[in-house]
Amino acid sequence: MKLKGNNYLEMAALVVFLLVFQYGIAQGHPRLIMTQKGVQEIKSQLGKVPLFDNSVAEVKKEVDAEMALGIDVPLPKDFSGGYTHERHKKNWLIMQKAGALYQILGDKKYATYVKEMLLAYTKLYPTLPLHLQERSYARGKLFWQALNDANWLVYVSQAYDCVYDFIGAKDRALIEKDLFKPFADFISIGSPQYFNRVHNHSTWGNVAVGMIALVMDDAELLERAMYGLKEDSVPAGMKDNDGGLIKKPGQKTGFLANVDEPFSPDGYYNEGPYYQRYAMYPFMVFAEALQNTKPKLKIFEYKNGILIKSVYALLNLTNSAGEFFPLNDGQKGMSYYSRELVSAVDIAYLYGGKDPSLLSIAEKQGRVQLDNSGMAVALGVKNNLTKPFVKKSIDLSDGSDGKQGGVAIIRNRNKDKELTLVMKYAAQGSSHGHFDKLSFSYYNNSSEVLQDYGLARFVNIEQKGGGNYLKENTTWAKQTIAHNTIVQNETSHFGADFETGSQFSSKKYSYDVSNPKVQIISATEDNAYPGTKMHRTMVVLETDDFENPLLLDIFQVNSKTANQYDLPFYYLGQMMSANFKYETPKILEPLGKSFGYQHLWKEAVGKSSSENTKFSWLYEGSFYTLTSATSPDDELLLVRLGANDPNFNLRRDAGFIIRKKNTQKSIFVNVIETHGSYSPVTENAVNAFSAVANVEVVYEDENYVAVSIKNNKGKVSLFILSTMNNSATQNHNIEIKGKTYSWVGTHYYTLIK
Amino acid sequence: MKLKGNNYLEMAALVVFLLVFQYGIAQGHPRLIMTQKGVQEIKSQLGKVPLFDNSVAEVKKEVDAEMALGIDVPLPKDFSGGYTHERHKKNWLIMQKAGALYQILGDKKYATYVKEMLLAYTKLYPTLPLHLQERSYARGKLFWQALNDANWLVYVSQAYDCVYDFIGAKDRALIEKDLFKPFADFISIGSPQYFNRVHNHSTWGNVAVGMIALVMDDAELLERAMYGLKEDSVPAGMKDNDGGLIKKPGQKTGFLANVDEPFSPDGYYNEGPYYQRYAMYPFMVFAEALQNTKPKLKIFEYKNGILIKSVYALLNLTNSAGEFFPLNDGQKGMSYYSRELVSAVDIAYLYGGKDPSLLSIAEKQGRVQLDNSGMAVALGVKNNLTKPFVKKSIDLSDGSDGKQGGVAIIRNRNKDKELTLVMKYAAQGSSHGHFDKLSFSYYNNSSEVLQDYGLARFVNIEQKGGGNYLKENTTWAKQTIAHNTIVQNETSHFGADFETGSQFSSKKYSYDVSNPKVQIISATEDNAYPGTKMHRTMVVLETDDFENPLLLDIFQVNSKTANQYDLPFYYLGQMMSANFKYETPKILEPLGKSFGYQHLWKEAVGKSSSENTKFSWLYEGSFYTLTSATSPDDELLLVRLGANDPNFNLRRDAGFIIRKKNTQKSIFVNVIETHGSYSPVTENAVNAFSAVANVEVVYEDENYVAVSIKNNKGKVSLFILSTMNNSATQNHNIEIKGKTYSWVGTHYYTLIK
Repeated sequence: MKLKGNNYLEMAALVVFLLVFQYGIAQGHPRLIMTQKGVQEIKSQLGKVPLFDNSVAEVKKEVDAEMALGIDVPLPKDFSGGYTHERHKKNWLIMQKAGALYQILGDKKYATYVKEMLLAYTKLYPTLPLHLQERSYARGKLFWQALNDANWLVYVSQAYDCVYDFIGAKDRALIEKDLFKPFADFISIGSPQYFNRVHNHSTWGNVAVGMIALVMDDAELLERAMYGLKEDSVPAGMKDNDGGLIKKPGQKTGFLANVDEPFSPDGYYNEGPYYQRYAMYPFMVFAEALQNTKPKLKIFEYKNGILIKSVYALLNLTNSAGEFFPLNDGQKGMSYYSRELVSAVDIAYLYGGKDPSLLSIAEKQGRVQLDNSGMAVALGVKNNLTKPFVKKSIDLSDGSDGKQGGVAIIRNRNKDKELTLVMKYAAQGSSHGHFDKLSFSYYNNSSEVLQDYGLARFVNIEQKGGGNYLKENTTWAKQTIAHNTIVQNETSHFGADFETGSQFSSKKYSYDVSNPKVQIISATEDNAYPGTKMHRTMVVLETDDFENPLLLDIFQVNSKTANQYDLPFYYLGQMMSANFKYETPKILEPLGKSFGYQHLWKEAVGKSSSENTKFSWLYEGSFYTLTSATSPDDELLLVRLGANDPNFNLRRDAGFIIRKKNTQKSIFVNVIETHGSYSPVTENAVNAFSAVANVEVVYEDENYVAVSIKNNKGKVSLFILSTMNNSATQNHNIEIKGKTYSWVGTHYYTLIK
Repeated sequence: MKLKGNNYLEMAALVVFLLVFQYGIAQGHPRLIMTQKGVQEIKSQLGKVPLFDNSVAEVKKEVDAEMALGIDVPLPKDFSGGYTHERHKKNWLIMQKAGALYQILGDKKYATYVKEMLLAYTKLYPTLPLHLQERSYARGKLFWQALNDANWLVYVSQAYDCVYDFIGAKDRALIEKDLFKPFADFISIGSPQYFNRVHNHSTWGNVAVGMIALVMDDAELLERAMYGLKEDSVPAGMKDNDGGLIKKPGQKTGFLANVDEPFSPDGYYNEGPYYQRYAMYPFMVFAEALQNTKPKLKIFEYKNGILIKSVYALLNLTNSAGEFFPLNDGQKGMSYYSRELVSAVDIAYLYGGKDPSLLSIAEKQGRVQLDNSGMAVALGVKNNLTKPFVKKSIDLSDGSDGKQGGVAIIRNRNKDKELTLVMKYAAQGSSHGHFDKLSFSYYNNSSEVLQDYGLARFVNIEQKGGGNYLKENTTWAKQTIAHNTIVQNETSHFGADFETGSQFSSKKYSYDVSNPKVQIISATEDNAYPGTKMHRTMVVLETDDFENPLLLDIFQVNSKTANQYDLPFYYLGQMMSANFKYETPKILEPLGKSFGYQHLWKEAVGKSSSENTKFSWLYEGSFYTLTSATSPDDELLLVRLGANDPNFNLRRDAGFIIRKKNTQKSIFVNVIETHGSYSPVTENAVNAFSAVANVEVVYEDENYVAVSIKNNKGKVSLFILSTMNNSATQNHNIEIKGKTYSWVGTHYYTLIK
């Protein structure tokens, strides 16, 4: 029997319930991530599979070092970054690893260590009040937020499972009665505003309860994990610390609801890759545990195999260094080298059909999870089954139905140079979403050409607001002006109102990468500013006329009223040149008063002086030039982040803003060129100058827009977009400058000279 | 016969002259870098020595690609970075390589290519006026500065040497008459203000003339190269574009003078490592050519083997990534991977006693020079002779007599972490010097903890002022406030007057690294501000009480008048925390009006509020904390570079300034701590907090200063410096806080609690 999708949730509930009672929980321990059979297989291969053996050795080294320091289960008091927080966190990680080592190596010292630590927690836990720090909407007991308590339980359930038999019935009874059952009750019944929602936080909660349920064979807890609390006392409209709504009326909850809702059919998670990565671990290990204990559930086939798909989505949401695109609240630098992705890749390999391309990711990761999935991966690598994981252009839909916009990633790879466009036309992205409709970022390999700022937070660094979200995350990072997209009248999309933003998503107009030389994503947004329609079309254009592919950006805006439109480009590195005149003020003032504008210093103010505005910069050895088809009255601003930042929480990054004032209908056309190179060792500047001679809007009416690009040798190409009809089979026919162009489909690209 | 030092220059002149005529020039071609015997040896090893074979293959690929494009010898018109400049530069590089390939591979197409290009130059050269660009104090013909013409000739002489026999007498006669002789005359007799000085520019000029003299067997040119022009028309007091004096009265000139004067006995070159690297190529290849043609000259033994020593000095003037410390006008990122250092290391290996540790540098470089020295290196590597090149602490004297101060590099290596202090107490450093007496920079491996700004120039990037020095090099980079040292009354050292600065150097007080745990450099400067004595003592302290070694910085200043003293620390990365209150202004204003202060924005202004001021930051995965024993009235400034920078030529780097006002005598005591780590992948913040509980000046009088450092576990250590007696054998005896300390030598360090 196979469960299918969203609409069958009621039926699925019944089915699971029956399965639990019909088949019962698998006998014996371990049974979650490790299984008795699995352990036997692992033991038989020990010493023969380098990647696995190295991972065992590494874990052993880490655990032995920690064990030498002795057990410390301190009275909780600190925020993340502080001692007690980090200690309890370390404890959960080391317990889980020690449990695995006990199973694999059979050395009782590891089991003893876990047992003693569990007994220490068993002694401590019943004495604990709510955590002293009051910041969280759902405080924990070991940690300042229930979320971290749930993290603890997800890992410690695995440790307990591994040493279950070793501990003995009497101590088990005590541990379950004083620690695990009240722990599971506290993070569920005791924290309904945390447990009973659809959010990455709650996924951890659901899985924590589910994992310990599976170990303890507790059907009631398992049902709670799968379907949430039947009743809760969450007041309507209650919000979390990030301003996120706890629960919509009638919202389904529990693990399956957390699989159903945030994932799109393509495996995109609505909060973005950073949080998808975070949630991936509980999703995947619980799925693995369910597969081991309840194979008939076929959890990996649930919703068309969404869990496996989501691993692929995540891997595609990385730059060439494996770092996730920092969409929404994402901390830069997080990558598929994280422990969550090691686990996810291993599980996806074993339970997703042993795709050999996943082995190449595992090889880069250089370590595996200490279970059967890790062994399967290590064996695959040993047996030379590895194939490259080739990241292609991909359009990931957003929304549980796949109809709430999406994120398009367009890649062009040529030799060692991979240019990557990330265009976001998604839904709000839950409480971690940013007000950044139709924004984009652009990469040259792992080098950020035009950046997405990411979040204003230093995760787990206590000096910076306890490692939590900083005020500037709201006042800057979430605001529209912090992104490479249009801001109308210095006000963020939806007035930066989360509820309003959550009602809408942008709409795909066209995504077409069938021609690898003309890859296009086009999307519209009609709700960010009531009465204003925005349409952005971005094309990665590979042509012989230029050294590297160009990024063509056509941003049309049309409003019922006259407005000011700002389109920023956040570049990194050193400005090289600008072809327009500008003034640099003697004193620096903020660009505005609110919606993030208060954080930007106005470093220079200019006006476009010719038909094309050019701005060049150098970053990490490559030159870049933005050529813009500007109008004579366009204002050009050079800005620098850092105003109104009393705690120095913001990076001093730079931006270039094109501003059009007092206009109803407007078009921004920009070409971003990657050219040349510079090395401080050879001191050779190669192709340091732009090769774009001219960018021109040669045609625009209600139905079409056409842009020509001329290079410095006189070669001219033309891109035409049908702006009112996105049918792939429609015939088009227009005359531009005396010449007729005919084609089929949404867009047309040709050399004309 | 062996030449010795400076004072024997007259005699040396005679000797060389005699040698030239007694022994004559070695017969046959090639004879400079390649020799007939050498070529035979190389050919016999071809295909058997991987490092050499790879280098041949790489060069062949490059030359073949260029040859496929055909020969282009354009009419000169551009600055560096522009087409004609880069083309002629490419031509010299490719000709030199093609010549080498002809000798090694015997394929005549390479000789033909060189011959044809030489004939093209022979046709062009007589038609050339001075270069159109008028910026240089010594314009060239092929290039905007004679310096680049000399570069061309140094390389092309080698090419000519390689194809000399191939060309035939008739064409040779034409080439020598219309190209090489007038070329050599133009850059010498025709450009005396360029040729007849002691400067890296002139070294190139001398060597260019010397190299072509050796090929053409022209004794008169050779003498000119070795000893300069006997008469010139250089007006007294004439300066170059950088404000450098052309020539002191009675100045000796020519190649030997350029060896005698700028190098200290330790091999430090007075302009700093960036220019030493630049000059190294002509020094070393000409020495090699002299050794090949005039072995009795024993040029490598000249001045106690100074040329070989200078290669070691250069290698020691690099961080753990091989990048040169950017002292004076140095562009960051330049490293021992440059072609000049490949050549220098190879030549130093073959002619300096085959030191196996040089092979480890060559291995990293991954290529060798295509001559006998390169073959010797490649054979050494093949035969597994390589030993590691271990960079130890070193004190490099400055000045031809070694008595004009110096540069101390103190290193502490522990596992993979190398902390490096670079303390500069040198002379002015010629026209490329900065006004930065007693300044320092500090590295954690190759990560800049506290930076030296380097230069304000984008070498060879045409958009940025033709790739030449920018105005901001004078108004910012050379100024004292751009460095981590004291500025008195917002005025640079010597009032930023080059002539004044050139008269003085700082003095070493003590350098002692005999105890690897307490490594010290101490130096004084009495002339930067007349009437003010400065004494800076820096100690790299390794102690069990801290995770990593500390940098202790004691800066004493004592003036006849009351002054304001600013001590800046230019950190990189993200500020984490400060323990003092500060205001962040609503608008940003420059910190001052001149001497570089006009380029700093005042981002925050505070006052020290406790006995210790603490300032922490995070950079490239490590935490750093500066703990300062401040007085209650000390002003604390957070500054950001970028004011009055209309062309965006400056990086927006940050600084922390401690300001003491209206004081005659003062002491700045700072401890810089390297601690912990942060990874965005694990999101673990380890040891994010400073472990320095207190820094205190516990004693100070005319003769001694003592500083105690307490860690967060109550451990206290004490450092005492005898400030008036730097004898290593002196007995000292003082009482501090009721306890007597006795020791021998300049300083004493002990744990006291």
